[in-house]
Amino acid sequence: MLTLSKFHVILIPILFFITLLSPLFSIALPINIWPKPRFLSWPQHKAIALSPNFTILAPEHQYLSASVTRYHNLIRSENYSPLISYPVKLMKRYTLRNLVVTVTDFSLPLHHGVDESYKLSIPIGSFSAHLLAHSAWGAMRGLETFSQMIWGTSPDLCLPVGIYIQDSPLFGHRGVLLDTSRNYYGVDDIMRTIKAMSANKLNVFHWHITDSQSFPLVLPSEPSLAAKGSLGPDMVYTPEDVSKIVQYGFEHGVRVLPEIDTPGHTGSWGEAYPEIVTCANMFWWPAGKSWEERLASEPGTGQLNPLSPKTYEVVKNVIQDIVNQFPESFFHGGGDEVIPGCWKTDPAINSFLSSGGTLSQLLEKYINSTLPYIVSQNRTVVYWEDVLLDAQIKADPSVLPKEHTILQTWNNGPENTKRIVAAGYRVIVSSSEFYYLDCGHGGFLGNDSIYDQKESGGGSWCAPFKTWQSIYNYDIADGLLNEEERKLVLGGEVALWSEQADSTVLDSRLWPRASALAESLWSGNRDERGVKRCGEAVDRLNLWRYRMVKRGIGAEPIQPLWCLKNPGMCNTVHGALQDQ
Amino acid sequence: MLTLSKFHVILIPILFFITLLSPLFSIALPINIWPKPRFLSWPQHKAIALSPNFTILAPEHQYLSASVTRYHNLIRSENYSPLISYPVKLMKRYTLRNLVVTVTDFSLPLHHGVDESYKLSIPIGSFSAHLLAHSAWGAMRGLETFSQMIWGTSPDLCLPVGIYIQDSPLFGHRGVLLDTSRNYYGVDDIMRTIKAMSANKLNVFHWHITDSQSFPLVLPSEPSLAAKGSLGPDMVYTPEDVSKIVQYGFEHGVRVLPEIDTPGHTGSWGEAYPEIVTCANMFWWPAGKSWEERLASEPGTGQLNPLSPKTYEVVKNVIQDIVNQFPESFFHGGGDEVIPGCWKTDPAINSFLSSGGTLSQLLEKYINSTLPYIVSQNRTVVYWEDVLLDAQIKADPSVLPKEHTILQTWNNGPENTKRIVAAGYRVIVSSSEFYYLDCGHGGFLGNDSIYDQKESGGGSWCAPFKTWQSIYNYDIADGLLNEEERKLVLGGEVALWSEQADSTVLDSRLWPRASALAESLWSGNRDERGVKRCGEAVDRLNLWRYRMVKRGIGAEPIQPLWCLKNPGMCNTVHGALQDQ
Repeated sequence: MLTLSKFHVILIPILFFITLLSPLFSIALPINIWPKPRFLSWPQHKAIALSPNFTILAPEHQYLSASVTRYHNLIRSENYSPLISYPVKLMKRYTLRNLVVTVTDFSLPLHHGVDESYKLSIPIGSFSAHLLAHSAWGAMRGLETFSQMIWGTSPDLCLPVGIYIQDSPLFGHRGVLLDTSRNYYGVDDIMRTIKAMSANKLNVFHWHITDSQSFPLVLPSEPSLAAKGSLGPDMVYTPEDVSKIVQYGFEHGVRVLPEIDTPGHTGSWGEAYPEIVTCANMFWWPAGKSWEERLASEPGTGQLNPLSPKTYEVVKNVIQDIVNQFPESFFHGGGDEVIPGCWKTDPAINSFLSSGGTLSQLLEKYINSTLPYIVSQNRTVVYWEDVLLDAQIKADPSVLPKEHTILQTWNNGPENTKRIVAAGYRVIVSSSEFYYLDCGHGGFLGNDSIYDQKESGGGSWCAPFKTWQSIYNYDIADGLLNEEERKLVLGGEVALWSEQADSTVLDSRLWPRASALAESLWSGNRDERGVKRCGEAVDRLNLWRYRMVKRGIGAEPIQPLWCLKNPGMCNTVHGALQDQ
Repeated sequence: MLTLSKFHVILIPILFFITLLSPLFSIALPINIWPKPRFLSWPQHKAIALSPNFTILAPEHQYLSASVTRYHNLIRSENYSPLISYPVKLMKRYTLRNLVVTVTDFSLPLHHGVDESYKLSIPIGSFSAHLLAHSAWGAMRGLETFSQMIWGTSPDLCLPVGIYIQDSPLFGHRGVLLDTSRNYYGVDDIMRTIKAMSANKLNVFHWHITDSQSFPLVLPSEPSLAAKGSLGPDMVYTPEDVSKIVQYGFEHGVRVLPEIDTPGHTGSWGEAYPEIVTCANMFWWPAGKSWEERLASEPGTGQLNPLSPKTYEVVKNVIQDIVNQFPESFFHGGGDEVIPGCWKTDPAINSFLSSGGTLSQLLEKYINSTLPYIVSQNRTVVYWEDVLLDAQIKADPSVLPKEHTILQTWNNGPENTKRIVAAGYRVIVSSSEFYYLDCGHGGFLGNDSIYDQKESGGGSWCAPFKTWQSIYNYDIADGLLNEEERKLVLGGEVALWSEQADSTVLDSRLWPRASALAESLWSGNRDERGVKRCGEAVDRLNLWRYRMVKRGIGAEPIQPLWCLKNPGMCNTVHGALQDQ
């Protein structure tokens, strides 16, 4: 552990030595802020000690105050010791006494597009550092940056001085999707995830709460849905749990965006209301049938019956409860993977089809009976792209008003993003080819011969594993789009579907890969020259991963520790081609 | 939670219902022992309660006694509640008072091939259950089986009665390799792994202690190796740590097999002895050079110089210390991936080559100068297959005496196993195509363009991820071998190389995939008809995974919990083809 006295001038000869050896070696900054700020100036590489009485001075605010307290405690307790030391001049004349936080407009709510920019300066010779933000949420981003600049062992803490940071995100929607239906996660798991998101300046926790496998959400108007549809009495989220999670989100500047997936993916609803669910509890892919005749795309069958009036009674109660519990202005209605075979098991639906009706008309009826109700509650509806782009069951754009509807893409990479924005809709990108964190761990189906076929990716439909590099490098608003279309790309989300994930692997599946998304959507994946900076990012991400682990986030390792201790030595020269 | 009174007759109507729906559904046993015993008879499906004063009666033995105490405590504290309930008749006339353990020969040591068989019987009407084994180690296997038969909430515990088990392993060597050099693991991580291995009846902890990235082992004769070659002063294993781990292994019936990889993979030795290591601390793949001209196959260069007398001085001290600290009768000497480019950086070696010497002669010299010394310490030497099969640098079989040498295969699947046994050597199988647990998580090199090429597996050289099914289904002594050759297959090991693993992901990378190996090598991967039973195993493995999690092993989930609660519903009919 380095003490203050040893900090005076630290020179690591090996850095110089390695620079000679490897043409690709680049010296990282002695401070390592993830995601990297848009603009950072620190010309003199000087540092200063934090006063033992250091305080953060900020106006009282419902949520920011909790954040200030948290960062004050973190700064005192973290004891961060960088794994690599750099030359830094420690100024001993004085210490930093406080960080003064100024917010221009405290009334700005935590919703999509809110100004998250901040400016942070620690002038040489001043007892005070200054954090200026337009919103409380921007101030939280700045506090996180400030916390990442501090190193040392309490009370001997240091931070850079003569530094100026100006920062703001490229995309307003930077999210993590967690599926709590295929497997259950505890409230503490969700809160730890929100905390980690906040540390990465991610701002949307997309909570895929319900699906065919379980309905864990206890709703005051429809308590039987969870009572009968959860995986067990201890595997539910009570209204108190939700309130705690939503509150925790606000205190971390993270929106909690609820998804109630309908009309497909609703088998679990059938435990309480068998009469509104078609094909519930049936074998998902009947023997002797083709893939086109399946009842669901994976085990767990069941779709809401759009012809049953009871369906809308229940759904509206659910919507109303969600709106009451989640202040978030987006409401995710699902809408993905409505499978023909499931609806066709219902006699009334079959009559409708025999009389010339179409499956798409059924979906339109469902949307027309629910979307206006959601909109009437002052919510913007998010659907999966399927409602517009599915090959078999899709809605006419006329039932999907562009001002109230956002589509989330998950298929066909940039092509589907293009189709959505070209149709005039705003889009959230969670392409399965890049952003699905569950892929590449084999299949979960029992008794499937595909597991023996190596080229199949071991049965994982979206194999291979999405590496942090793949996530980092994906350009969600790339060359296919024109300038107007680009504006419709709200941002992106990595998605953890939970067929093969639960509490045991939550942290390691999410982190540091969600951190790669975080930087890519905050300050981009290219350097000042416009060149992809994935190669330069590896050491920074690695350092940040170790810091997350120390903060209690079980992020998985991306390299041997040896690589950090021997900068540049784990590169491959032949990889230089990538930086084009 | 089920109480005794409710156990009288539990009938789950859904089981019957599902049987009608799915032609492939098979009812698992109400008790779930992993690995499945070779022979189990329980005709009446009756259960009995455990007496509150239940004890295990076993003779005093240095290691077995610790095991008995442990199982006694586990039985009292586990409170295992099966996720699926089955029809069981609880007999209420009496309770089981004790388990009587009999061992035929306490002198049998824990070494390869020791008799691990056991017989376990719980007769109806008797106050005592009986466990009979030839060795203390077989008794430990039987105790584990006994512990897995118990369910309920203490003190209301139940177990089957009228049951008879006869069990023994198909292969004597059933191991897990852990690499503690690329990243460091704490002593508690290693002990938890040994505990989990024992629960899976795995019996060899192959400890790949050192490599180019670090030398974490503190050796009395060569303390500078760890002092200078470890990743940090807190990232070492002291003699006390080793002694603790070895002792813990004995108490769990797990051999601790040390590997000191030489002459390649020794960069870390160069920190203490630069004069005996060629190409240490050089960039692994010099710019402009072809792959054939690399200095190492991954970052972290350095090979022991076979022409330096000092090399053998140090190596013999290391061997002697290892022999003193590890009673295990196998000594793993490494021998893999000796790279021409590295040796060629040394002037003396270049002179040798210019004078007509060959690289293979250098390897032979190294082996001739070390193998006899290891053998003189009453050890059998294990090498990686490379010493015999490498395309460029290999030894003549004459320097690899068959009676003292075992080869471990990792390349080319069954073909290399065949080549090794056809040459008359015993083999341990850890084929990278099936048994490498690190594969499929992308690459770790910095700045590598391959990460953007999806078909490359994201830069993981041995992608894809090895699924539990792939591990389970691999026949390590398959059709290529004749009867005599088959006898030379000692067993297999799954391997966790740690470029992208450390404490944060240890449990989830190992388990339950190492459990798949455990059953495959203990009782095989086929049912009584000789048909592969992977499809039938999924529910059993899933249940066992949940039980491991409850026992403190963070095994990763393999399915939605919904699948266990809805037996048979997560199968795919089309997978039936696999069961051939």
